[in-house]
Amino acid sequence: MSRFFTQRLSALTPYVPGEQPQDRKYLKLNTNESPFPPAPGVARAVEAEAGKLQLYSDPESTLLRQALAERYGVTADQVMVSNGSDEALNFAFMAFGDEDAPLAFPDITYGFYPVFGALNHIPYRTVPLAPDFRIRPEDYCGLNSTIVLANPNAPTGLSLTLDQVEDILARSRDHVVILDEAYVDFGGESALALLPRYENLLVVQTFSKSRSMAGARLGFALGSPELIGDLKTIQYSTNPYNVNRMTAAAGIAALREQAYYDGCCRKIMESRAWTKAALEELGFSVLPSSANFLFARSDRIGGEALYMALKKRGILIRHFTAERINDYNRITIGTREQMEAFLDGVRDCLEDQA
Amino acid sequence: MSRFFTQRLSALTPYVPGEQPQDRKYLKLNTNESPFPPAPGVARAVEAEAGKLQLYSDPESTLLRQALAERYGVTADQVMVSNGSDEALNFAFMAFGDEDAPLAFPDITYGFYPVFGALNHIPYRTVPLAPDFRIRPEDYCGLNSTIVLANPNAPTGLSLTLDQVEDILARSRDHVVILDEAYVDFGGESALALLPRYENLLVVQTFSKSRSMAGARLGFALGSPELIGDLKTIQYSTNPYNVNRMTAAAGIAALREQAYYDGCCRKIMESRAWTKAALEELGFSVLPSSANFLFARSDRIGGEALYMALKKRGILIRHFTAERINDYNRITIGTREQMEAFLDGVRDCLEDQA
Repeated sequence: MSRFFTQRLSALTPYVPGEQPQDRKYLKLNTNESPFPPAPGVARAVEAEAGKLQLYSDPESTLLRQALAERYGVTADQVMVSNGSDEALNFAFMAFGDEDAPLAFPDITYGFYPVFGALNHIPYRTVPLAPDFRIRPEDYCGLNSTIVLANPNAPTGLSLTLDQVEDILARSRDHVVILDEAYVDFGGESALALLPRYENLLVVQTFSKSRSMAGARLGFALGSPELIGDLKTIQYSTNPYNVNRMTAAAGIAALREQAYYDGCCRKIMESRAWTKAALEELGFSVLPSSANFLFARSDRIGGEALYMALKKRGILIRHFTAERINDYNRITIGTREQMEAFLDGVRDCLEDQA
Repeated sequence: MSRFFTQRLSALTPYVPGEQPQDRKYLKLNTNESPFPPAPGVARAVEAEAGKLQLYSDPESTLLRQALAERYGVTADQVMVSNGSDEALNFAFMAFGDEDAPLAFPDITYGFYPVFGALNHIPYRTVPLAPDFRIRPEDYCGLNSTIVLANPNAPTGLSLTLDQVEDILARSRDHVVILDEAYVDFGGESALALLPRYENLLVVQTFSKSRSMAGARLGFALGSPELIGDLKTIQYSTNPYNVNRMTAAAGIAALREQAYYDGCCRKIMESRAWTKAALEELGFSVLPSSANFLFARSDRIGGEALYMALKKRGILIRHFTAERINDYNRITIGTREQMEAFLDGVRDCLEDQA
């Protein structure tokens, strides 16, 4: 830290993303990337933009927002787009969190929420998950807080039903409920159906996972025109051209290829079921996942030990050190072939252990 | 504004970028875009990334930072990259501005500075430019402030010499001096030469102007490893993957084509000299510009009247309503042909006026 760094942020601890080692090739099952490339139309759309980069992108992202509105059955003024969904989440925290509306989110969830809270000096409390790692809707009643829930939750993969989400929305009408649906396309139920009835609902989604665009950085928020207007006030006070031309074009093209992406999601869900069964056969406990990853533990090998042993074998999974979950690992679901290689690695580690 | 929007930001007035009308084709001389496309290698680099978008970009942007370090004769840990230079500026304001280090910048400068101040609740004062619109270095002494200067300044186009910049740095050693060099490649003197001697110097530049990449969103900051470390603390607490794969590849490719971009800058500087002379022949007062735009006024037609009359003719220039400069317009320098069309338009407006 330099001697010039503001005291305001001197206690800030940044988020640590999953490792992206450059030293060797790994089977990367640690950052929930899709194993499938974007649809062919995406590359063509990007190429068409590459010669026009001297011109600013549309600060309104009009065409992209219209395409998203059409896809999700809302109006364009109910859509904000962002440089990855992290940016949309940060803006939402800034817009709807403060001393009068402190944040509440689970103790085990996306590790960026407390960082956004600290960055923006928004007080927050964490609400413990149930012993089985489920979110209990009743825990979020009467908190007088802006509620932030990942659904499906990460890194557990567990999801709330639409009824449970509605229960939370109905009992928190004076505060915004931010639903981070980054993983919803892998078997979760989106809360978008509830938008017409709940002015306190903000849904955040991403193109990073189910649409194979983690490297393009594109997220979006959907909500009432008023909530979206608030986010745009912050966007235009931060980075009016937050989505570049190539990413905007890629996003529009991706929305035209729903069938391709539905197929990718289906394959990932099939690999997930197969991998879960195979892990259980090896004695692992595996949470039922609605996301493109599994959260699993074994009595035969510790969470960190397995992570380290697999890394030595060229396989990366994600280990977290928080006490409640340090026996577990989060395993991204890749192709069937990748998951077979992963399971071979796991068997190997277990044998070494024995 | 929704009823949920935080009181903290309820007075926030967003920045208004130059208009990007979609209703008809304009000769766009209003947002300081380059009239030249990116170098051919840039498009090829983008195309090579388009099929790999399912993978996150490198959160360290290692190759891009190394390429920038090499280009500017610094080490990679002296470089941070950002989603446009607006993001780097916002991070720098957050890192180095607070009650103990309020901001100081000219009354006439990039309109985003006061917005970043308001967004982050950083107190700021504006320092009036001299009557001839020059920045007086002596005005920035003893302010006990984090100083923010665009050099060349916008929308005036006037630049400080390296000696003047050093004077400011030497007399503010306990505060960071943020130099926004967005337009430096069109004839300004970069302060980068002073980096080894001033730990309080932070230079922010962009690929938007001289490198024809406004639509790709790529900016960067250069400074001591400590200052850059502070910016990265904020980056990794905001948006770790802030630069997408395609933009990073485009940036690296652009840095390999210095000769092409030098040629573009030279052509723009030639068009600028020619346009300035032609405007002066028509009776305009034109400030001497070191940027890719001119700032000009006429006794024969008001600033807003000229802007409106040209817009009717399909030519967009930028008019500002601040009192000191509302007689002026900012005119982006395009190709020689574009500037001829612009001058035809101006002559036409003046005749209509007479």
